[in-house]
Amino acid sequence: MRFDPAALRFDDRGLIPAVAQQHDTGEVLMLAWMNAEAVARTLAEGRVVYWSRSRQAFWRKGDTSGHVQRLVEMRLDCDRDCLLLLVDQTGPACHTGRRSCFFTAVRDGAEADVG
Amino acid sequence: MRFDPAALRFDDRGLIPAVAQQHDTGEVLMLAWMNAEAVARTLAEGRVVYWSRSRQAFWRKGDTSGHVQRLVEMRLDCDRDCLLLLVDQTGPACHTGRRSCFFTAVRDGAEADVG
Repeated sequence: MRFDPAALRFDDRGLIPAVAQQHDTGEVLMLAWMNAEAVARTLAEGRVVYWSRSRQAFWRKGDTSGHVQRLVEMRLDCDRDCLLLLVDQTGPACHTGRRSCFFTAVRDGAEADVG
Repeated sequence: MRFDPAALRFDDRGLIPAVAQQHDTGEVLMLAWMNAEAVARTLAEGRVVYWSRSRQAFWRKGDTSGHVQRLVEMRLDCDRDCLLLLVDQTGPACHTGRRSCFFTAVRDGAEADVG
């Protein structure tokens, strides 16, 4: 079956959440959002392009920072309303300089830095 | 710093996306949604409780299917608007009977079953 980005299930803003995972280590790096055009561009370029909700603009990951995400494989879930991006991440994925955005754990009711 | 579920950044429906990952293999299993009470219940019980958007009710994963998600660790991202749940998943996570919901890949412009 041909894949049509427009046949994904987008929310009322026209967006779908995309989870980026380092393809070889399994580390979950970040979650961001895509619209249909960002999905199409990501597949066409082999580089991850998100939709920035705060800037209301395409966000070609790494254009400013150099921290590019090369797409290894795109997957969709059973409901077609979420994407999993297997990527090869150059440098940190997080704007804080951490490899992953998920560097805070909840342990014994408190926040702990595990980054 | 104490962790307060209400201090997470929820969307305009009062929900936050939660990515479930098998803690030891790194497999990304599914993405679902939580409200503040679901986050609190998950931490209190050590079992993952989502908020079902379709049923508008708490969804204590595995209560019907037996496919429980035991919480190993909860993490939050740098923006506090997404959760990563390291879990121990009993059986399949997906309602289709697949281990992971992300069993469809996009390869050469077509959908491929990789589950």
